[in-house]
Amino acid sequence: MSDLTHLFEKIARGDVPSHKVYEDEQVFAFLDINPLSRGHTLVIPRQRYERLDDLPPEVGAAIGRALPRIAAAVCRATGAHSYNVLSNTGREAGQVVPHVHFHIIPWHGPDRSLGIRWPATPIEEDDAKALRDEIASALADGH
Amino acid sequence: MSDLTHLFEKIARGDVPSHKVYEDEQVFAFLDINPLSRGHTLVIPRQRYERLDDLPPEVGAAIGRALPRIAAAVCRATGAHSYNVLSNTGREAGQVVPHVHFHIIPWHGPDRSLGIRWPATPIEEDDAKALRDEIASALADGH
Repeated sequence: MSDLTHLFEKIARGDVPSHKVYEDEQVFAFLDINPLSRGHTLVIPRQRYERLDDLPPEVGAAIGRALPRIAAAVCRATGAHSYNVLSNTGREAGQVVPHVHFHIIPWHGPDRSLGIRWPATPIEEDDAKALRDEIASALADGH
Repeated sequence: MSDLTHLFEKIARGDVPSHKVYEDEQVFAFLDINPLSRGHTLVIPRQRYERLDDLPPEVGAAIGRALPRIAAAVCRATGAHSYNVLSNTGREAGQVVPHVHFHIIPWHGPDRSLGIRWPATPIEEDDAKALRDEIASALADGH
């Protein structure tokens, strides 16, 4: 448990000040105080879930419903046309605050945006079939 | 309009084969054929919308509802603990196929994962207040 564990709950309750841009019953959105670019916004569930895969379906739906509207407003306010939406789960993947958050990061030039490296390699057919079946099976099991 | 414009619609209809892992009335998910890591999965609306901010609220909700379940299954099947969820809108931000898609990219080590650079700088208070008001106002206008 880091000091950051409950930060976003406090922000959503207004106990810690933030630059709020949106809120509804389940979702809260505010400017990142260490932005990658102008308009970098965080969209969170009011209630804390550490991992994206911890989100109950209705909370995931509330965030998915809000994201397009908030992204449109960020573009309109900043003049950005392109942007990245990113949510990191787990420390190795870059998650710092253990409370699900989606970054909306407008693209304002190669040095004022999210930096992405994309070292993709073609899929291996045999492995893909096995993997597809495992994922589909895990979903069917309700895990 | 690139040759890729209608690819994901064809995949969701089954007209182009894919390694499907999940589908419901509005959402379809399949393995990326050029994965960044084992289990790299794409989650799309069946119907084509080019940009995330084009998504109607109910379609955004359907994707948000499915993402946590699919991410959990990808972790379970691949043994990954950490992962990134990424959606790029606009060519400069890395969007190649003009059909909204969320990448789920399991973290299997620094060279088998999404590469991220995070050149953040502290927010400027005065600008942040103006920007927050502009974004909130764009949302209130329904844009």
